[in-house]
Amino acid sequence: MHEKRAAKSIKDLGEFGLIEHLTQSSKAKGGSTIFSIGDDCAVIERDGLSYTLVSKDVMMENIHFDLMYVPLKHLGFKAVSAALSDVFAMNGTAEQILIAVAASSRFPLEAFEELYEGIHHACSVFDVDLVGGDTSSAAQGLMVSVSVIGKVDKSKICYRSGGKPNDLLILSGDLGRPYLGLQILEREKSVFLSNPQIQPELDRFDVLVKKQLMPSARKDIIELLSALEIVPTSMIDVSDGLASELLHLCNRGKLGCNVYENKLPFHEETLLMATEFNLTPLTCAMNGGEEYELLFSISQEDYPKIQGNPHFTTIGHFTVENEGCNLIDNSGTAHPLKAQGWRHF
Amino acid sequence: MHEKRAAKSIKDLGEFGLIEHLTQSSKAKGGSTIFSIGDDCAVIERDGLSYTLVSKDVMMENIHFDLMYVPLKHLGFKAVSAALSDVFAMNGTAEQILIAVAASSRFPLEAFEELYEGIHHACSVFDVDLVGGDTSSAAQGLMVSVSVIGKVDKSKICYRSGGKPNDLLILSGDLGRPYLGLQILEREKSVFLSNPQIQPELDRFDVLVKKQLMPSARKDIIELLSALEIVPTSMIDVSDGLASELLHLCNRGKLGCNVYENKLPFHEETLLMATEFNLTPLTCAMNGGEEYELLFSISQEDYPKIQGNPHFTTIGHFTVENEGCNLIDNSGTAHPLKAQGWRHF
Repeated sequence: MHEKRAAKSIKDLGEFGLIEHLTQSSKAKGGSTIFSIGDDCAVIERDGLSYTLVSKDVMMENIHFDLMYVPLKHLGFKAVSAALSDVFAMNGTAEQILIAVAASSRFPLEAFEELYEGIHHACSVFDVDLVGGDTSSAAQGLMVSVSVIGKVDKSKICYRSGGKPNDLLILSGDLGRPYLGLQILEREKSVFLSNPQIQPELDRFDVLVKKQLMPSARKDIIELLSALEIVPTSMIDVSDGLASELLHLCNRGKLGCNVYENKLPFHEETLLMATEFNLTPLTCAMNGGEEYELLFSISQEDYPKIQGNPHFTTIGHFTVENEGCNLIDNSGTAHPLKAQGWRHF
Repeated sequence: MHEKRAAKSIKDLGEFGLIEHLTQSSKAKGGSTIFSIGDDCAVIERDGLSYTLVSKDVMMENIHFDLMYVPLKHLGFKAVSAALSDVFAMNGTAEQILIAVAASSRFPLEAFEELYEGIHHACSVFDVDLVGGDTSSAAQGLMVSVSVIGKVDKSKICYRSGGKPNDLLILSGDLGRPYLGLQILEREKSVFLSNPQIQPELDRFDVLVKKQLMPSARKDIIELLSALEIVPTSMIDVSDGLASELLHLCNRGKLGCNVYENKLPFHEETLLMATEFNLTPLTCAMNGGEEYELLFSISQEDYPKIQGNPHFTTIGHFTVENEGCNLIDNSGTAHPLKAQGWRHF
């Protein structure tokens, strides 16, 4: 039987669909590749006890960042932090990074220096080595790509796919602040563009803005999990909004989930500022992103190890696949989760 | 004493100077990093017997390639080939790649498909796994970045720095053809732009053009060296012109060299076509690049192992540092080598 191939566009596919479409013909040839495309990192055989983890991110000017309000130093830090987060999401330790930078001639040497100041700062904070990369000129704009190399004990690796029904869904930190930080920066940009005499009013919002400009990947959470002797059954980092990450975990694990609106962790500033922007904190959490918090599942018997720990919030649990992925609102009604995360295509 | 810091620009520094300038503050923190910036790959501890090699390249539209005459399929192949060449230059085996692609909305899905067809073809030819990466939209143009992960026996790793005075300088393949291929493509582009009715005349030049569009990294040479039981004392791949690569080997090894014009390997087509472009084959070899041939040194006692082998040409030898890096022309006169390789800044 012939299947008519549907004409598809990049917009229809979305970022994840596009990657799947382009890489479906690539099968690992055996050798040292343990796990290829479809998780936060690829996994490579290292030695008897550990795997090498590798991942690669790219950030493009005017797609991922706007230099009208993103200082280059912060951009350098954020690019590294976001890349390392992929290694932490596999329960690994990041060890090295490679950086590629391409910039048009409008960027003088001082711009490169500022960018690398942020990169070196992140290397120091997260204890990783910058071991190489590439620099190039570009016809237009600025591109920063970070590749990360990490390591994980074979007994501790966490894939997206490892959850089981009734495992508890746990989140580090809180949600929505980087998204609100972005709203503030965009608002002040509009104000400035309409009247360049007005100075941006950012002091009042400095924590929210910093959460957007300089998010910190959760190396500390990986260390805490290790100290608590918890190996999550599945894990992912929150970069594209909670809804998208929950769907990834459920799809990969062939599971459903129930997540409870009244369990979601919000900072007080999020509650206040969401109102100011006519947004609900729930929207900021579900469709915001860039928190680089860790979302993971644990078996119920591990629950006493995290109970009452202020770094963690239990937001729901996995169910069987045919129960679907649901957000249970404050009235007890179930709403199917939809990924409305950040789409740049 | 105060040193007055000279005001520098990116142009003054050049690509290699810029990388050195930006990374001079980065010191490896111990851990698993064996060798950081300054060779074809960074070197990471793997297990008792082997190291992991990592490298990252970036190619930007209208800087590294012109889509007026570079088919996307060839671009995908070349991007992978060029990246793998860095692993071969350390005497290693390439095992995995990560790809980041960013493209403006002028690139439809079919363009991505074509690019990935070339990427998959290269993966198949060189027996490597595509294990991940990132795709993004871009405000303008096309960017392709390839990161490569490889492996090398500790007893076989070749650094740029390992040469000794009197070691012989050996080159695989021949020089200058990709550069002449580029001249042909640029000429046909000018002809086409001045009169779009004229069809490009490329058949006559198809080998030269293919050497430019689809260069093949020399995995076979690494295998041959292994079969011949040769471990080069130093090695580099020829991407920026022979002069630039010789200077890298000499600088890193604190050595001089004598290289003989009449020993340089040229294909018959190079001799013919250089004349047509009013170039000397020597200029094409010294300042061309993109051959992705391997330039290495061996101790004289290994010479019998390669003597008469058609894959290899002995082009000269290392000397002590204060004798300088010289090209000895056909009249026996020594000319100090200058890197006039491809500068994109």
